[in-house]
Amino acid sequence: MTGSADHVTAIDTPALVIDLDAMERNLDRMATFARRAGVRLRPHAKMHKSAEIARLQVAAGAVGICVQKTSEAEALGAAGIADIFITNEVIATSKIARVATLARALTARGGRLAIAVDSAEGGAGLHEAIRRARAELDVFVEIDVGQGRCGVPAADRDPNAALELARRIDASAGLRLAGLQAYNGKAQHLRSPEARRAAVAGAVAAARATREALERAGLSCPLVTGAGTGTYMFEAASGVYGELQAGSYLFMDRDYAENECDASNSHFEHALFVLTQVMSVGPDRAVVDAGLKSHSIDSGLPRVHDPAGRRCFAFESGGDEHGILRPLDGAPLPGLGETIWLIPGHCDPTVNLYDRYVGVRGGLIDGHVERIIAIDARGAVT
Amino acid sequence: MTGSADHVTAIDTPALVIDLDAMERNLDRMATFARRAGVRLRPHAKMHKSAEIARLQVAAGAVGICVQKTSEAEALGAAGIADIFITNEVIATSKIARVATLARALTARGGRLAIAVDSAEGGAGLHEAIRRARAELDVFVEIDVGQGRCGVPAADRDPNAALELARRIDASAGLRLAGLQAYNGKAQHLRSPEARRAAVAGAVAAARATREALERAGLSCPLVTGAGTGTYMFEAASGVYGELQAGSYLFMDRDYAENECDASNSHFEHALFVLTQVMSVGPDRAVVDAGLKSHSIDSGLPRVHDPAGRRCFAFESGGDEHGILRPLDGAPLPGLGETIWLIPGHCDPTVNLYDRYVGVRGGLIDGHVERIIAIDARGAVT
Repeated sequence: MTGSADHVTAIDTPALVIDLDAMERNLDRMATFARRAGVRLRPHAKMHKSAEIARLQVAAGAVGICVQKTSEAEALGAAGIADIFITNEVIATSKIARVATLARALTARGGRLAIAVDSAEGGAGLHEAIRRARAELDVFVEIDVGQGRCGVPAADRDPNAALELARRIDASAGLRLAGLQAYNGKAQHLRSPEARRAAVAGAVAAARATREALERAGLSCPLVTGAGTGTYMFEAASGVYGELQAGSYLFMDRDYAENECDASNSHFEHALFVLTQVMSVGPDRAVVDAGLKSHSIDSGLPRVHDPAGRRCFAFESGGDEHGILRPLDGAPLPGLGETIWLIPGHCDPTVNLYDRYVGVRGGLIDGHVERIIAIDARGAVT
Repeated sequence: MTGSADHVTAIDTPALVIDLDAMERNLDRMATFARRAGVRLRPHAKMHKSAEIARLQVAAGAVGICVQKTSEAEALGAAGIADIFITNEVIATSKIARVATLARALTARGGRLAIAVDSAEGGAGLHEAIRRARAELDVFVEIDVGQGRCGVPAADRDPNAALELARRIDASAGLRLAGLQAYNGKAQHLRSPEARRAAVAGAVAAARATREALERAGLSCPLVTGAGTGTYMFEAASGVYGELQAGSYLFMDRDYAENECDASNSHFEHALFVLTQVMSVGPDRAVVDAGLKSHSIDSGLPRVHDPAGRRCFAFESGGDEHGILRPLDGAPLPGLGETIWLIPGHCDPTVNLYDRYVGVRGGLIDGHVERIIAIDARGAVT
């Protein structure tokens, strides 16, 4: 078991390591950006799943956090986070009852629960459960702004869908119509800034048209919320979005780092790593102890990171428990027992594989373990 | 929380569900095969990670279980499994000490711990730790029989590598030279039976040559162990392998089911499913509540399974928490709240996402929850 004050090389492998200095710079950079841009920041905790990290974000100015699942909201609420937005739909009666219970508990603590809705059935279920629980809930009507997943059509494509749903919510005692959830995940990973800018322009137009439709009908639309690490600067500049939901900026993964940047794009540092150890060496390869159970490869394989900048290896998948390193640029093979740093392809599902982070202070070469950080909502899928 | 005696439709989603009837038929089929073939069965528990299921396998005739990680061995040992083979190398001093501690504990309970070794350093570290712990450990020399991952070269490629390592193990008090670990994971998923048969023929030749080299040198080689669900019948018929390590046969995943079968290949049933619920319906799609956090897609997306055989949907990834269903063959869209069964692409890393199985008796249409089964070694990566 990895303990506090251990040198980085003493960390038991594989381990999910945060470079705390890099994370804090990322934290500050995004908080400063949002403050200067005059938009609210509500980071998506589906990325880090940790109440301790959520508290750091709130302390730096975030208005609260987002989650995707009822069980994530329950886990982070139980760990002390009071202002939570479930940016997703809930349909099952048992889950809706849990949402109402949590809403009452957070309100009693001076906090607030919000949720997204994209169907009359979902809104009616929430209304009934909130009434029974004598609770209050903020409700955002989710509109599809290009993702093609959840959300009713925006008003530029269907003049009535969002309006009808907003009217129902507005007429439901206990539910407060809080605005529009308008997120396009597909836009985040378009490689060129121009493509991302164009995708967000479409989302902004759709959200603006929908907000105007609501307001013309006499409904209030206090907030349009959305955006991610790949596009947040465009939503912030739109004049329509009032809240940013970016999450990955805090850790940065290999996939996000492969987005091309331009002057409008702040540069975040890699702050999340999988530390692994060489446990077998063959004639043309070294085998490390991190495989599919140590990092998710849905967005591609991890990249090998050498903090000293001297050596270069290609990473090949070696199955559930192994990775295979091939030297590049004539680098020698690493020796048995050497530790290797990996930058995960995709943060969120990689974090979901671990119960804790190892927080390192002072860098990856000479740093030490400052603290262990619980991943409270690991495995919270329901 | 899903409770016992609930109807299948009451299971909270997403959930990892075992069709207990199908699993028990698979369990019996493989146990019967091994008994008739006259080979030992030591199923790989890296697949199911559960002491309760390991006990079922042992009760059906398995000699013990395999695992890949020290922490898996510790978790399943603590849950009562006494005969465990870590089919993998351990190098870190702290892990080697844990192996020695576990070896002593299992021996004291009348069980046994075994491990694989592919380096002199690994063997020396184990020797020293076992001496300190006053324990005993079975050691298999791992040879590379085509996987290109861990293992020293087999004797048909290097006449000395395995022999030298075996001599060192044999000369190390406390370590018992138990034979050869000879597994080719790549062979398991070759689609045609002919290709799998040819790959195993190569592994058999390599293992035979190595065993003969050891025996010529006066060393004993009591057992050659290996094989998986894709090839076990070929190793069983080889006259060289005395033990089968197949694991996935118990649940079967989409990837294994896509192997072409021939008369030599027993047919196992799908017994593991992810139950998910429709939580949003769009004009051309239904969105379910299972995404990358509910199933691993390293071997491809899950397949939608309709127990009634009436409807057909294509599954598209919808990110960490969503899946998108598109109707095929003119099927109507499922309604909000409907439950859908998915067959995961790859069992092992999918199981690693959950803390428990929901065990269903009586089928997926009218069955009920018989019991909850703990996944003791979930997240055991060290």
